[in-house]
Amino acid sequence: MRTTVGIIGAGPAGLLLARLLHNAGIESVVLESRDRAYVEQRQRAGILEQGTVDVLRAAGAAERMDREGLRHDGIELRFAGKRHRVDFPALTGGRSVMVYAQTEVCKDLIALQLKQGGPLLFEAEALAVEDAESARPRVRFTYEGREDVLECDYVVGCDGFWGVARKAVPAELSRVFERTYPFGWLGILADVPPSHDELVYARHDRGFALLSMRSPAVSRLYLQVPQGTDAQAWSDEEIWDELERRFATDDDWRLRRGPITSKSVTPMRSYVHEPMRHGRVFLAGDAAHIVPPTGAKGLNLAVGDVVTFARALAYEKETGSSELLDAYSETCLRRVWQAERFSYDMTTLLHRDPDATPFEDRIQLARLERVATTRAAETDLAEGYTGFPLE
Amino acid sequence: MRTTVGIIGAGPAGLLLARLLHNAGIESVVLESRDRAYVEQRQRAGILEQGTVDVLRAAGAAERMDREGLRHDGIELRFAGKRHRVDFPALTGGRSVMVYAQTEVCKDLIALQLKQGGPLLFEAEALAVEDAESARPRVRFTYEGREDVLECDYVVGCDGFWGVARKAVPAELSRVFERTYPFGWLGILADVPPSHDELVYARHDRGFALLSMRSPAVSRLYLQVPQGTDAQAWSDEEIWDELERRFATDDDWRLRRGPITSKSVTPMRSYVHEPMRHGRVFLAGDAAHIVPPTGAKGLNLAVGDVVTFARALAYEKETGSSELLDAYSETCLRRVWQAERFSYDMTTLLHRDPDATPFEDRIQLARLERVATTRAAETDLAEGYTGFPLE
Repeated sequence: MRTTVGIIGAGPAGLLLARLLHNAGIESVVLESRDRAYVEQRQRAGILEQGTVDVLRAAGAAERMDREGLRHDGIELRFAGKRHRVDFPALTGGRSVMVYAQTEVCKDLIALQLKQGGPLLFEAEALAVEDAESARPRVRFTYEGREDVLECDYVVGCDGFWGVARKAVPAELSRVFERTYPFGWLGILADVPPSHDELVYARHDRGFALLSMRSPAVSRLYLQVPQGTDAQAWSDEEIWDELERRFATDDDWRLRRGPITSKSVTPMRSYVHEPMRHGRVFLAGDAAHIVPPTGAKGLNLAVGDVVTFARALAYEKETGSSELLDAYSETCLRRVWQAERFSYDMTTLLHRDPDATPFEDRIQLARLERVATTRAAETDLAEGYTGFPLE
Repeated sequence: MRTTVGIIGAGPAGLLLARLLHNAGIESVVLESRDRAYVEQRQRAGILEQGTVDVLRAAGAAERMDREGLRHDGIELRFAGKRHRVDFPALTGGRSVMVYAQTEVCKDLIALQLKQGGPLLFEAEALAVEDAESARPRVRFTYEGREDVLECDYVVGCDGFWGVARKAVPAELSRVFERTYPFGWLGILADVPPSHDELVYARHDRGFALLSMRSPAVSRLYLQVPQGTDAQAWSDEEIWDELERRFATDDDWRLRRGPITSKSVTPMRSYVHEPMRHGRVFLAGDAAHIVPPTGAKGLNLAVGDVVTFARALAYEKETGSSELLDAYSETCLRRVWQAERFSYDMTTLLHRDPDATPFEDRIQLARLERVATTRAAETDLAEGYTGFPLE
């Protein structure tokens, strides 16, 4: 099998890249190890930055998002019993975010790709990427019980943190930057209308909590829990009780309870692999970097990567110059590190570090107070949240 | 001996308080354990915030400062070989800072106080503050070889971190917040014109460096060194070589060398004691809080404290209400914690933590990059540097 761009992974990065390339008249093949139902079910992030929304619209993949997605013009910070709303458009010159689950983005992109696009093979498991430094890199994979090879001009690894593409970068050229956190998120889906119409980020002495939503009828809520917590060890009532404590305010705000339909624990990690390119193999999204979910940056960073790649390749087709492709890693990493910084800062701003000293607790509260009382600090947060510009 | 306000310590806090009270027609006595020459010589901070400048002017203590002080409209951040100027007035609606050494402020205030003010006793060592909860707190002290007692309506402890006033707050009511740093500053004075006309804050892989000045002819320079470093272990040449390395830029900027007239190492500490008041005993300045010098906040916080006290006491004289005096600790601590936060953030933004992971190093660079490239983050820094408003 031969193609121009071999894409490993049909998450949002791989699927959007296939779409962008199709629109630019460039051939691609997508290999996805899981089956379609799995890809269309897995629960991930749900916040699209303004830039991501713009990209999906320009790619012709935003029809259902524009119908069903919920535009959010702000978030609420909650600490010391107080509520502070951050008004995105007022602080950023009109930017906002869209609440639309990653899993829905994937469904939309899969439907488009199958209707009109290059091959998208499910249950096609990439085994290795070979000859990265040659003009014809190859992906070895299994499909329908036999091993096959995809010959490409370029390979883009959109195969996530556990994927094989990253291994194409020789260890002696790789540098890994990493941080783990002593806590994770216990996340639930509940069949109850969200208790607030915007996301609520709560810092509490007992730990962080986040109120989010999937739709006007489905709430998504999270609790900071110690690393290694078993989601099933928490009863539904314990979860609601704890959420109620952490979201408690000085006013008459109330948390609505409802049937919990899903419980799981997400670990928290910051991770960057440099470089994001070796020869003709490019890494995009979680294959190259992980952020803790607090800043809602994971999906949006992946979108930035594939847009950068698609532009660089189109530029080469047009001009014959590989300048932008050569700059891919550096270009992406500037944005990646700003998002890593933002995600790290949002995480440390809001979570209770079990090892924090009383001094550090007060510094955390002083930072929240600063965001809540000065336009500069609030703007800095709003700009980070609504997204870093694509270069 | 009797007075209205007993002031322990003739540093800038105690001296300014005596002046403010004198101007408000309120009696005070200042007790200072050292002799006048010592107080007029000790090298401390040299950056006055806009608010401090305004207070000194309003107090009639700014004549020489306005003649000899150097108004600075910005600082330079230096990292990764790049230079970035932060323009204070442009970012803060006209605020700037004044370079005028604390020791000069003290000289001016001492001269004023001796000419026209209440008693200012040098070599008068406070031993203890007693009866804080009564209507007549007392300071026991030694003076000219004998023990004496100063009876007061109020005692203000401006006697620094090692002073006795803080002991008047019962241990069971006290809470201490503290952080030490694994590094200090090796500071020099050199008889050479400053190599730059504004302060330069340099982040370098080898550690932080700061270029400052005492006058157009005298440079003040600092190097981050490991905690416990002996200043005399560094030869003059080693100091200049290391400064040159850390200030190195991509352009043709050059460091001027000259004879070093003083070398010393300052430890770094963050410290807050809560509350700042017990009964009729009030703590001001270093007696209640210490900041690392990176943010140049120490002197300015002390000024904020004594202004708050003088206003509160004048309010009580006028209205009979102790409302502002009762709120003293809370009022001061809001500003203190913002300054602690800023000082901590400036310190971690610019110093090399010997235990930092490669991930944390990149986050530090991403933060500097953010300050250098976005108006919001730059404004946040400029507002913090030029000072937090007095309430």
